[in-house]
Amino acid sequence: MTSPTPTSLIRPLVRRLKPYTFGEQPKIRGLIKLNTNENPYPPSPKVLAAIKAATDGRIRRYPDATADGLRLKLAKYHGCASENFIVGNGSDELLALATRAFVNPGQTIQYFTPSYSLYPVLADMHGARRNEVPLAAGCALPPVSELRKQGAWDFRAALTFITTPNAPTGQGCATRELKDLCRAQKGVVVLDEAYVDFARENAFSLALEFPRVLVARTFSKAYSLCFLRVGYFAGHAGLIGAMHKIRDSYNVNGLGQAAAVATLGDLPYYRRNIKRVIATRERLSGQLRALGFVVPPSQTNFIFVLPPKFSAAEWLGRWRENRVLVRWFDKPAIRDSLRITIGTDAEADALLRAARKILSR
Amino acid sequence: MTSPTPTSLIRPLVRRLKPYTFGEQPKIRGLIKLNTNENPYPPSPKVLAAIKAATDGRIRRYPDATADGLRLKLAKYHGCASENFIVGNGSDELLALATRAFVNPGQTIQYFTPSYSLYPVLADMHGARRNEVPLAAGCALPPVSELRKQGAWDFRAALTFITTPNAPTGQGCATRELKDLCRAQKGVVVLDEAYVDFARENAFSLALEFPRVLVARTFSKAYSLCFLRVGYFAGHAGLIGAMHKIRDSYNVNGLGQAAAVATLGDLPYYRRNIKRVIATRERLSGQLRALGFVVPPSQTNFIFVLPPKFSAAEWLGRWRENRVLVRWFDKPAIRDSLRITIGTDAEADALLRAARKILSR
Repeated sequence: MTSPTPTSLIRPLVRRLKPYTFGEQPKIRGLIKLNTNENPYPPSPKVLAAIKAATDGRIRRYPDATADGLRLKLAKYHGCASENFIVGNGSDELLALATRAFVNPGQTIQYFTPSYSLYPVLADMHGARRNEVPLAAGCALPPVSELRKQGAWDFRAALTFITTPNAPTGQGCATRELKDLCRAQKGVVVLDEAYVDFARENAFSLALEFPRVLVARTFSKAYSLCFLRVGYFAGHAGLIGAMHKIRDSYNVNGLGQAAAVATLGDLPYYRRNIKRVIATRERLSGQLRALGFVVPPSQTNFIFVLPPKFSAAEWLGRWRENRVLVRWFDKPAIRDSLRITIGTDAEADALLRAARKILSR
Repeated sequence: MTSPTPTSLIRPLVRRLKPYTFGEQPKIRGLIKLNTNENPYPPSPKVLAAIKAATDGRIRRYPDATADGLRLKLAKYHGCASENFIVGNGSDELLALATRAFVNPGQTIQYFTPSYSLYPVLADMHGARRNEVPLAAGCALPPVSELRKQGAWDFRAALTFITTPNAPTGQGCATRELKDLCRAQKGVVVLDEAYVDFARENAFSLALEFPRVLVARTFSKAYSLCFLRVGYFAGHAGLIGAMHKIRDSYNVNGLGQAAAVATLGDLPYYRRNIKRVIATRERLSGQLRALGFVVPPSQTNFIFVLPPKFSAAEWLGRWRENRVLVRWFDKPAIRDSLRITIGTDAEADALLRAARKILSR
């Protein structure tokens, strides 16, 4: 190696960039992992069988570049057409693609805070202007009239991301209110519904109703396919077609496509698991409240809690000493809270036992 | 659906873009598919077993975000360190990432023509200036002195892609000449070695020698893993680190990582297949020459042939009528030739039989 890399070779925008902080994937055995919102239940046996059945000499071939089989299944499931869908290497790939399809560098990418912490990184990567508008106390979506009054919200932003239900706070958004907001925006709106399967309602219909609205979904959270990276966007063919133009040709691996198709063929299995997660969420929320935690109602597969007695950072460390890993974000507006993924009932009990132990010291 | 998508929502750069044309993946049974440079031999039985062994409840978990296990194996294989590697969702993802890491919109992306037809699309997507320099007759890499004399080549281009061995023409590049070129360039150079396992030499050492040089490799061609999308770049930690900053967090699916690790554990299997492909390539080249085709020597798993009697477009159609699919690029400089992937010996024989039939009509 002759000499260090001249930093001048790297774009100034990239040199300055603070990358996204992903949740730790520890290799410690026996750790209860409640830090990255994974589903505690495995994929359905039919899905695992479908992956294995596709694992043969065909692996040497390129996958379906346009994911036709999967998009057709999605079209049937959602009651629209294949051209309304683009499938991605996880929905993260599609969120990034949206910035490059709909935003010129220098234009505005807008979102509420707190919400998905990837959005500011995507804006910075693309050289876009960020417009971050704090959510009101309680983290409810502000009505359009309120946003107009406050003046900070940009109704002409090139791209607006709305996490619904929100993350990391967990509160749901009423479709009626989302509709008002979609109607008021002049640019593209992405309704990021990564957690919507755990919520009371979803806003999928808005993607069909408004030509400027896209809905983002993923197979990672409710459908236990994190490992295989499959997400999708739905919307009018005009916007979806623009994203297809700039994606990698073979952006979704073939086993991920096969697994997602099999998943859509076994939805009752997943609906049962979703119900179990919701039941555990409600029980855990109640029992943590009884221990003095403030636990706002959640419509996701996690809860965002304000802990008693010690700081959130201290709770993170103490739970970890007890082999329970939760997520803490070291950011001003949310550093007092912890995000806890809903695991199995046994995992919730272990978390509660550890909490009682920590509180009794 | 209320109204069509206003095109003003889509970036002008994307509206104007001519997307990359990927090779057809036909669903016709019995077709001999020699159009996308896939390996005719399946992955090793150990690799298929490794994929199946990883297909269990762990699919619900995110994959290793930094592909540590695979990067460690690559480091051992290539004799350098994990920090010298970034793994991608196919090398296509990394080629695109390189444009965003090292090129400001408006700066220059440079390559020879003909070479990989994705490069101009990546440049256009990014709003970069394209500098396309035609290869001389015979398609050899011009020496640096020649490039200086001609004046069209930009030694200060922010990013230069060199396909080596070249595609779709198949000729190899001498490492000595690549080294001269790397030494002369002031910006980042990507040596795109997608096909190098079929060549007499590779230029991997240049990535370790020059802090501005990256080498691109893929598991798709020589290692029969197209379906799972795994490629990688090697280079100094400075450049590689810049690419890590802007990739998606979980950009490589977990089964792809497991398959690639298992592949590196069974290289003798693949070396045998590479030898078979090379033997078939040489035999097919000779027999096509005997039929009147001009077949330049290839150092890849395809040949780029100038056919006799009919136009290349006609040959494409006539071979297809005989259930043999090859690749034709409708571009001025190369529209007289056809690219034929090297399949099995039986597939080569079928192609030759069809050629004799077509010629005898």
